[in-house]
Amino acid sequence: MTEFIPASSRFVGLPSPFAMKRGDALLGARMAYETWGQLNPARDNAVLIVTGLSPNAHAAASEAHPEPGWWEEMVGPGKPIDSNRWFVICVNSLGSCKGSTGPASINPDTGQPYRLDFPELSIEDGANAAFEVVRALGIDKLACVVGNSMGGMAALAYLALHPGSARAHMNISGSAHALPFSIAIRSLQREAIRLDPNWNEGHYDDLSYPENGMRMARKLGVVTYRSAMEWDGRFGRVRLDSEFREGDDPFGLEFEVERYLEGHARRFLRQFDPNCYLYLSRSMDWFELAEYGNGDVMAALAAIKLEKALVIGVHTDILFPLQQQKQVADGLRAGGAEVEFTPLESPQGHDAFLVDFDRFGPAIAGFLGRL
Amino acid sequence: MTEFIPASSRFVGLPSPFAMKRGDALLGARMAYETWGQLNPARDNAVLIVTGLSPNAHAAASEAHPEPGWWEEMVGPGKPIDSNRWFVICVNSLGSCKGSTGPASINPDTGQPYRLDFPELSIEDGANAAFEVVRALGIDKLACVVGNSMGGMAALAYLALHPGSARAHMNISGSAHALPFSIAIRSLQREAIRLDPNWNEGHYDDLSYPENGMRMARKLGVVTYRSAMEWDGRFGRVRLDSEFREGDDPFGLEFEVERYLEGHARRFLRQFDPNCYLYLSRSMDWFELAEYGNGDVMAALAAIKLEKALVIGVHTDILFPLQQQKQVADGLRAGGAEVEFTPLESPQGHDAFLVDFDRFGPAIAGFLGRL
Repeated sequence: MTEFIPASSRFVGLPSPFAMKRGDALLGARMAYETWGQLNPARDNAVLIVTGLSPNAHAAASEAHPEPGWWEEMVGPGKPIDSNRWFVICVNSLGSCKGSTGPASINPDTGQPYRLDFPELSIEDGANAAFEVVRALGIDKLACVVGNSMGGMAALAYLALHPGSARAHMNISGSAHALPFSIAIRSLQREAIRLDPNWNEGHYDDLSYPENGMRMARKLGVVTYRSAMEWDGRFGRVRLDSEFREGDDPFGLEFEVERYLEGHARRFLRQFDPNCYLYLSRSMDWFELAEYGNGDVMAALAAIKLEKALVIGVHTDILFPLQQQKQVADGLRAGGAEVEFTPLESPQGHDAFLVDFDRFGPAIAGFLGRL
Repeated sequence: MTEFIPASSRFVGLPSPFAMKRGDALLGARMAYETWGQLNPARDNAVLIVTGLSPNAHAAASEAHPEPGWWEEMVGPGKPIDSNRWFVICVNSLGSCKGSTGPASINPDTGQPYRLDFPELSIEDGANAAFEVVRALGIDKLACVVGNSMGGMAALAYLALHPGSARAHMNISGSAHALPFSIAIRSLQREAIRLDPNWNEGHYDDLSYPENGMRMARKLGVVTYRSAMEWDGRFGRVRLDSEFREGDDPFGLEFEVERYLEGHARRFLRQFDPNCYLYLSRSMDWFELAEYGNGDVMAALAAIKLEKALVIGVHTDILFPLQQQKQVADGLRAGGAEVEFTPLESPQGHDAFLVDFDRFGPAIAGFLGRL
């Protein structure tokens, strides 16, 4: 499979072997990352961003790669995560296909892509791999670790596994574990991919990419990333202009909302490796922070020692519902951190942090400004 | 394809030709129905039930067919829809595969199943076909027309197309038109079926049934029929006992919620015809009561003249959200009906009317008792 690595990526080799939580180890694995701004002499101004399932490490434009990044409005000089003050690091998740080692990477044992021979991937593996990047950059203690969505899980794992590794934490639309609605949605997404005959137990290639399965998985994702409220106002019952209809297909696209989903799917297809998608998706279902609190998620959160935390959630998020961010905030506060819990009224659901900069920008800039 | 017709079904032939809203006509079509109780001499105690997408006409046990029906707790002697007082009629929807004519029925022109040669199906066609059943039973005016889910749309179409055909109406988890979230979900369900190679543009048979597509469609349906809140309490993060795991499938079922979805899917597979599913699903997306009010849905509702109406919705319904039942209630009230709007606190989402009899039973019995 093609890998999708931004030209600006830099790499850190992971310790080899790199032990995985559920057993097995990676040999010669690497992590892709990018940075913005300068590490100060005290090495105490580093902000680490751990991402959701699909982004690469290119959060924002840089001199090396001026193309806008996936969080362009949020990261850079004078922006809410201000690279004039902070040394900002963004890592591509372990298990992804965008520079870090994952199921689409070459298995050094065989010279062939891992595919389903990649070891079982946990959120904790991604957290440990991100920790290695930070250590390789000579940073003992982060000013802040920022996690969005899946990255919110990974950031909590990072803090649970590496006590004292950060002064502050920003958890954005994240959670301490998945609830059954989200597990059900991700299970269906994985099933759609696995049902595509082209998936072929992971043995596809560019000519036989499981496009239908990935299209279905992405559309189902988008349905849960946004909100019904946003769509009522945005699409209503508007029909496609006839020029966009598929001529003689009696069940073809007809409503604007269907075209919107199809457009999202087409932009995703062949930009993400299906096996990597399966591994990362499953890692979210498995993640349970309560493991670090003798089965009690609040105890696990309270065991995380921080100076300050900001926890942001959105009322319209159905995938990582607001009650989960409230839980994270309450638990971290119980551990002694000074916690700001900031529920936002964004209509855009789980994806709001990627689009609603009017609400997220001030919340994030304000918190970092008070650090 | 096998048809799935309860032994107790009775049939009414539709006028032939039976004109369809979007053009074309059915020849020799029929409607399946069942009844409970006795029509009184004044012929004014008839209650018609129009159903959601999948039920047959067997709402409850009867002498002819003692097997429990899909609304067993609601229909019968002494039950909320009390057959000691009411003559209760339930019709199988036109376009279904459970006795009424639909895409799985034989096309008299060819002697073969219609499949995709079935005319485009609208909610209004189902309403008109139900009206023919009522007329054939010698009833000029129903005491009440009851519609659940899709049947809530069909009941409104019935009332809009046949003024004066009912004194009262019960609209349960229905709506005057679909909103984009529901359209998106149904579009994905249809896409899953159409992507199954066995669907074969509608030319499957029992040996090549599009099982994977139907499984995915059903699971996605169940995700939207229930609620995240119910599942948090019911499943949490509980894993399957190892005996239920699929041994060596690395992405097989692991959580209880996944087994629940799989169980629902297996009970649905081969119990419903895929082409019928496609037609009925699309008819819901198309339905727009505003057509009967010069494009204004409130005007269309206000044009429906009733003595009384009960509109029930559920806070946790994401497929037919409560705001839609509020709209139906407000619009019918504007038309002069005495309307009770009864939002219920059921955790079971859209499906609550099928399971939460503690809440729905008294609401329905109370309304009918006051008629």
